[in-house]
This record gives sequence, structure tokens and C-alpha cells, in this order.
Amino acid sequence: MSIIMTVAETAAWLRERDNYLILTHRRPDGDTVGCAGALAQGLRESGKAAYVLQNPEITPRYLRFVEDYHAPPGYRPEHVIAVDTASYEIFPKNGDEYKGAVSLCIDHHQSNALYAERSCIGGAYASCGEIIYEILTALSGGVSAKSAGQLYAAVSTDTGCFAFANTTANTLRVASLLIEAGAPHRELNRLLFRTKTHSRIKIEGAIYSGLEFHFGEAVAISTITRALMESAGADEDDVDDIASLPGSVEGVKAGITIREMPSPQTCKVSVRTTPSVDAHAICKHFGGGGHKMAAGFTQNKTIQEVKEELLEMLKQFFPGADCP
Amino acid sequence: MSIIMTVAETAAWLRERDNYLILTHRRPDGDTVGCAGALAQGLRESGKAAYVLQNPEITPRYLRFVEDYHAPPGYRPEHVIAVDTASYEIFPKNGDEYKGAVSLCIDHHQSNALYAERSCIGGAYASCGEIIYEILTALSGGVSAKSAGQLYAAVSTDTGCFAFANTTANTLRVASLLIEAGAPHRELNRLLFRTKTHSRIKIEGAIYSGLEFHFGEAVAISTITRALMESAGADEDDVDDIASLPGSVEGVKAGITIREMPSPQTCKVSVRTTPSVDAHAICKHFGGGGHKMAAGFTQNKTIQEVKEELLEMLKQFFPGADCP
Repeated sequence: MSIIMTVAETAAWLRERDNYLILTHRRPDGDTVGCAGALAQGLRESGKAAYVLQNPEITPRYLRFVEDYHAPPGYRPEHVIAVDTASYEIFPKNGDEYKGAVSLCIDHHQSNALYAERSCIGGAYASCGEIIYEILTALSGGVSAKSAGQLYAAVSTDTGCFAFANTTANTLRVASLLIEAGAPHRELNRLLFRTKTHSRIKIEGAIYSGLEFHFGEAVAISTITRALMESAGADEDDVDDIASLPGSVEGVKAGITIREMPSPQTCKVSVRTTPSVDAHAICKHFGGGGHKMAAGFTQNKTIQEVKEELLEMLKQFFPGADCP
Repeated sequence: MSIIMTVAETAAWLRERDNYLILTHRRPDGDTVGCAGALAQGLRESGKAAYVLQNPEITPRYLRFVEDYHAPPGYRPEHVIAVDTASYEIFPKNGDEYKGAVSLCIDHHQSNALYAERSCIGGAYASCGEIIYEILTALSGGVSAKSAGQLYAAVSTDTGCFAFANTTANTLRVASLLIEAGAPHRELNRLLFRTKTHSRIKIEGAIYSGLEFHFGEAVAISTITRALMESAGADEDDVDDIASLPGSVEGVKAGITIREMPSPQTCKVSVRTTPSVDAHAICKHFGGGGHKMAAGFTQNKTIQEVKEELLEMLKQFFPGADCP
């Protein structure tokens, strides 16, 4: 069983030790990457050796926040720390050797499996970045401009620039303090939230132009074919959070994205809903699952087949509405 | 000349008087509307009579923040207050009778013409909402949940949900305090930033699909024809901030939106740039102007004519790049 530590205990634990290796999670987002960079930076400023395990899945968008801290070949850490990582299942592929050997996990997921020797978990926090901010402040009385920038990336990306429903008063308070500490928020906001790649523009254009509405516009469906991805020259970065688009249309209660995957006859379906519709229940029917307002599933069928089955099944969720 | 007052002096001035009428500006945005509603609400909570002059230009998106405070016919105020309104030129059409009779102006525009008897100006603030927050706090020790919601709308819309370059540490600090005071930020964020009308979706789809790039992709041009507006059933609300779209594409230094207006052969051009390109200089050439990174002009020409002249003129800004 994991020893649960407070922020102050975690800071004290870090102060008493040295030679750290920090792990990010698979399909790395701004929170795990920003936290890893900020923690490495903060520990180094406290005189410690601290490195980040290179995660081959980190895309150019986020690489800048950790590349200065990548562990050199053969680095033998004394203590392994996982950030924003709820379970072994989402360890990066090259992190296998550290399963069972994590000294400390710092995370904000309530679902954290408590797999580490010690855990510092803030389940009410919108981002892991808010916890790392508190830990670094407890460790050395504040954060440097460099750490502040990395943490601003963590906090802002996990909350969709403070627009997602997980945003709290604390998120904004910490973001404000990070700006005061020197986070280059203007540059980061432009980079992270106000810049779209050419590929992204093409994908969004196709999605917006091709949205289908059903059940009196309560359901919006977008489809992303392989052909579209290829013609747009799009990679995973370009379709980040793309599943939120259909659900952003006025009056839509369920926004559905059906994406054709590289494997033949495989579709990934993302469902985003308003509180009145249970996304998890919809996806469970097809062998998937997730949260009440955000869930997904995968089917070995064509886009058309998946769409027809979904629309048939959705009749029970939208009784009385016009049939598609 | 206007008497300049601090926040504390403004609060004292409000406390000593009664029977207020609050004015919003022409082409009302979330800041002027949210400030008017919050100030009326806060003054009423302090036992004052306070109303907002109905502004016929307020769209449904923002109407909810002020409709409870509209002045009844024949209301005779003792003191008129203008919020977020830099000059008489942007008074609403039905506000003519109050020109020369404004007792107090509360604003965050450095360009404020100081036209009111008394002025409380915070030129470093991203939004007027931040100043109203301070005034209401000075007036009565805090803001109610209702005022907090109105001010959250003001602060968040004027900063593009905290993503625009005008956002400061203070903006986020105030937003955090407003959430603590009970602002329904989740509902407001969904309404203001994460909901698009069907018309908006159609317009965005057409813009993204039809973007033209010139000078090695440094210039992106989008055109919005009357036919597009009509086929999308779009009104002014649906094209709010649409000029920022072309400039959001990676690598673009000047994002240009040419919009065909209802008057025949009239085009409105908006130019958004990165710091390396002077939007004001570009627009001045065509008889317009604005800020260094956001400016505009109007031409009595067709879209095609405007585009050709612009591209010819832009050669001096992008020397060495490929000709369009």
C-alpha cells in the first residue's frame, strides 16, 4: 500500500533525497510534460540531479518543455517519480523497467491506483500542475520564471485555457501567481491556444462543413476518414481535442466523432454530451466506456456501419425526436 | 476637464449619491454589458436605485446580463454613469441626450477622452470588469454571486477566455475571486466560449475551407460574401471576432478578413498581425487605422478589387517573398 503524503511532506521528502528520474504518461499532454519539466527544473534549482525519461510520444508542440532535462543514456536514478500518471497501464512503452520501482507519484486523478511507494494526490485539482506548484513553493519558497512557464503550460492545457468545466478558482489563482513569477503567458497562449496548423485548419474546415445533425439537431456527428487525414497531412497533434467540436454546436446534446483508424475497418468513436445524456452508457453498449460526459469506443466496422448502429441505438436516448 | 478619481474615491462618491442610470457603448460587448449589469446589481444591493439604459444593439448572447435592470420609460436619473466607454462617439444611438451630462465614467481604455465630470480609469487593466470589481469591493466589502457572474462575463469575454495578449496576472486573480464569490463560470464558459451557433459553424467551415495563402503562407486571406452570410443565416453575433481566424494559422504574419457589407460595393477589411508586421500602417494606406496588431479599413470596391490592391500593397511588407 502506498504512503499518502501531503504537499509539505512531499517537499520534505524531495529535499532529503537526490538523483531523480521523472516519468510522464503515455499519449503525453501538456500537464504531464509541463509538470515533468517544472519539477526537474525546480529540483535542479534546489541543487539536485533531476532528469526526465525521454518519452518518444511527446510531439513537437510539447517537447520544448522537457527537452532540456532528458536523462542521458545510462543515467541510474536513486528515485523515480511519476507525474500526472494514474496507473502502470499508462506508463510510456520505455518505462516498463520502472513499474514496481516508483518511489513517488504526484497526481490529480481521483482514480489513481496508488501504485507508487509514496503518493501525493490532489483529486480536487483541475491539473497536476497546481500540485507541483504547491510542492515547489513548499520546497523553495516559490517558482522560477522557467518553472512558472512549464507549469503555466500544464495548468492551461489541462483546462482548455480555463474554459473547461474542470477549471476552479484555484486553477485561476495559481495561473495568476505563475504569471507574476514570470511565466511568458502571452507567448504560451499564442502557441498553445491561438495557433492552428495548416492541417488542423483543413480538418476543422471539413468537419464544420460536413457536420450531420439528427434527432432534431440534438445529435451532431462528424466523420474523419483516413483520406481526409492524409489529404490534410494531419498527425495526432492536429486532431488533439477534435472530438469536442460537434458538441460545441448550439443545441447539441450529444456530439459524436467517428474516426477511421489506420487499421483496416476500424473506427474510433468519441462521444461528448451535456449533463442530460450519459456518454458512458452510450459507449458501454458498444463495449467502450469513460465518463458521464466524455466517453468512447472502438468498432471493427466501416464508418457507415458504425453510424447506422449508433443512430439506431440512440433512439432510446432521444425518444419522440424525429428518426434520422 | 474631468476630475480623476481613485477606486476608493469612486466608491465613496457612489455611496453618497443615489438614482443612477448606467450607459453601455455602441456595438456592445461582454465587458460593457457585464459591467453595467454588475454595477446596477451592486448599487441596488447597497440600497440605491440603479438602472441600465436599454441598448438596442445588445444581442441575445449578452442580453441576459442586463435585462433585469432596464430603465422604465420616463426614469429620470440624478447621475449618469458610462462604463467601458472611451468617448461620446461610441455612445449608443439612444444615448445622445446624455452627451455632456455624464457624471462618472468608469473605463479601462487608455484612450479615454475624459468626457465625464468624473473619471475612474484603469488603463493597465485588460477589462473594465476588473475595475468594477474593485469599486464594488470598496463599496460593500465584496460582490454578490449575481454581480460576480456578470463581472466574470465582462472579464472573460474581453480577454478571449484569458487567451488574448491583454490578459494579466490581475485578470486571472480577479476571475479566481469571482468564482469564489459564486460566479457560475462553468455555465458561462460553455455559453460564451464553447457554444457555436449553426450559422457560425457554417461560416467557420467556409472560412477554413476557403483560406488563401500568399507570400509563402505569411499572409492568409479569408473572404465573407453576403451570399455566405445569407446562406448561413448569420447575423453580427455569428461573426464576432471572426477576423482573428486567418491570423491563427501557423506561420501567418498577417491574417486578413475581407467582408462584403450590405451596402452595395462596400467591403470591410480587418487586418490582424504578429508583432513583426504593422497592421495600422497597412490600413492607413487605405484610409483606415487602428492598433499595431489589429486594424481595419472600409473600401467601396468589390472583394476581388480590394484583394488585388491589398496584395499589391503588401509586397513592400513582404519583400523577397513570392508574388501572389
